[in-house]
Amino acid sequence: MAASRSPTVHPTAIVYPGTVLGDGVRVLEYAVIGKQPVLSPRSTARREELPPAELGEGTVVSTGAVVFAGTELGSRVIVGDQACVRERCAIGEDVVIGRGSLVENDTTVGARTKIQAEAYVTAYSTLEEDVFIAPCVVTTNDDFMGRTERRHELIKGPTIRRGARIGGGAVLCPGVEIGEEAFVGAGAVVTKDVPARTVVVGNPARVLREVPDDELLEPW
Amino acid sequence: MAASRSPTVHPTAIVYPGTVLGDGVRVLEYAVIGKQPVLSPRSTARREELPPAELGEGTVVSTGAVVFAGTELGSRVIVGDQACVRERCAIGEDVVIGRGSLVENDTTVGARTKIQAEAYVTAYSTLEEDVFIAPCVVTTNDDFMGRTERRHELIKGPTIRRGARIGGGAVLCPGVEIGEEAFVGAGAVVTKDVPARTVVVGNPARVLREVPDDELLEPW
Amino acid sequence: MAASRSPTVHPTAIVYPGTVLGDGVRVLEYAVIGKQPVLSPRSTARREELPPAELGEGTVVSTGAVVFAGTELGSRVIVGDQACVRERCAIGEDVVIGRGSLVENDTTVGARTKIQAEAYVTAYSTLEEDVFIAPCVVTTNDDFMGRTERRHELIKGPTIRRGARIGGGAVLCPGVEIGEEAFVGAGAVVTKDVPARTVVVGNPARVLREVPDDELLEPW
Repeated sequence: MAASRSPTVHPTAIVYPGTVLGDGVRVLEYAVIGKQPVLSPRSTARREELPPAELGEGTVVSTGAVVFAGTELGSRVIVGDQACVRERCAIGEDVVIGRGSLVENDTTVGARTKIQAEAYVTAYSTLEEDVFIAPCVVTTNDDFMGRTERRHELIKGPTIRRGARIGGGAVLCPGVEIGEEAFVGAGAVVTKDVPARTVVVGNPARVLREVPDDELLEPW
Repeated sequence: MAASRSPTVHPTAIVYPGTVLGDGVRVLEYAVIGKQPVLSPRSTARREELPPAELGEGTVVSTGAVVFAGTELGSRVIVGDQACVRERCAIGEDVVIGRGSLVENDTTVGARTKIQAEAYVTAYSTLEEDVFIAPCVVTTNDDFMGRTERRHELIKGPTIRRGARIGGGAVLCPGVEIGEEAFVGAGAVVTKDVPARTVVVGNPARVLREVPDDELLEPW
Repeated sequence: MAASRSPTVHPTAIVYPGTVLGDGVRVLEYAVIGKQPVLSPRSTARREELPPAELGEGTVVSTGAVVFAGTELGSRVIVGDQACVRERCAIGEDVVIGRGSLVENDTTVGARTKIQAEAYVTAYSTLEEDVFIAPCVVTTNDDFMGRTERRHELIKGPTIRRGARIGGGAVLCPGVEIGEEAFVGAGAVVTKDVPARTVVVGNPARVLREVPDDELLEPW
């Protein structure tokens, strides 16, 4: 927006060497960008020196937020106050990552998707374009919660298709697919795939009705 | 408590110019007070230069917490570690805003209300006096989750009446009213208004019984 | 791991005097260790000057995390980014406390237990060894939510026995005991004790089946 387009980094922010900041990037107080992960000796995540973080033009990393090395944020992304984006994520343009939320490693988020405050997006998730994740949504990726050897090949975050909306405090069980333009009600616990354009509610989530025409991104 | 009543601001805290700090205010490590919002180009929130934040006497803003410009905190408020209070909020005296919780913009919180850790209070909420919000409570304000034009006039946070209590991890759907001295059980998903002095539980929440006499603020 | 074993404290971190840092401890950007609690005038927590925090060898306190005085972290503990551990906690060796999560005061956590991101562990909780707390789990300790005088003697966090696993976004009501090797499904709301080796799901949580042999820590 402003005439000046060079990046603005608050003096208290820490931007690690090599980080690529696009035109007009803003980094606010106490934000940390480009840090390498510190893994537990017992973690199953991959170990390697990661390439620097890259931030597209006009992107904002807000107060106290943390963005890891090896992650790419598109243009005009907002990372909210006290939020965190882990390593090896690809975040599309115009995405909003709300205050206090966490996007775990190896996750892809499509353009214009909104992840609202205090949401939790687990590792190895796929969120397509124009998805809406309401505040405090919970996602999961491990049915075995740390047990068995075969879990390593079965770990799988949710796949959330274009234009789907997930309500406040809803919980998605490991590996579920939420269909295009589907709607998961607030507080629902989703234990299996949700068909496109379908509204589900409850614990466990059950089909309630179809998403009405006037709430679709475009006519079906 | 202390004899000295001038404000105490930790050298690492950032208090933006113009912020009004009452007698005995304490601002702890890495807290940020009075910041202006940075809105997404696509946000529907109002755009304006906000007046400075005002903090009443004896109020504490804890480690890593963020309080926005345009917000007024009453006397003896505690904003917990890593918590956040957005712009244009009016927070009454003796309120506690727990560690890591978020109070969104344009929200009113009455005296002595306790918002516990990791709770989420959505924009345009009204919490009256002596309300108890347990940890990780989720509130919502948009039934359309970002779709339709008419949603803008229909956005509405919860109204939580005097003395109501909301249990841990409960989810309130947009616009619900929780009656005076009502009790929402832990993990309940509240889809419609809850009458005064009523206990509700479950998903969706259903009436269980009346709040017993000895748990009321005063006799009915 | 490294040959050098002296503690590494980032220049922006604050470690209060007296804190005991074991060999090879790492303290990352903007972390705060050893702070004394600031209680509300109306808080019911105990008031005293607490002894310094103690961190065992190889323990890591990550970016923006807060560890209070009076707490002991064992060896090789990871306190994740933006997490918080309150006062008078005893955290065993090899414990992971995930990003953004909170462990409240007077809590005991056994060796190798994993508390994942954004979880909430209430005050006066007991977690034994090898427990798995999935992301966004909610625990509670006060059935009265701040009312009645007798609540003070009844406040009780959960007891989570050895090897139990609690699924993402699950809610535990005050004082429940989760038996050894039990499994609480994602999004379950647990209103009463769960027997050992039992799987429960739903709101309220009901018994579904037994935990299969291949998911146990060791044969029964």
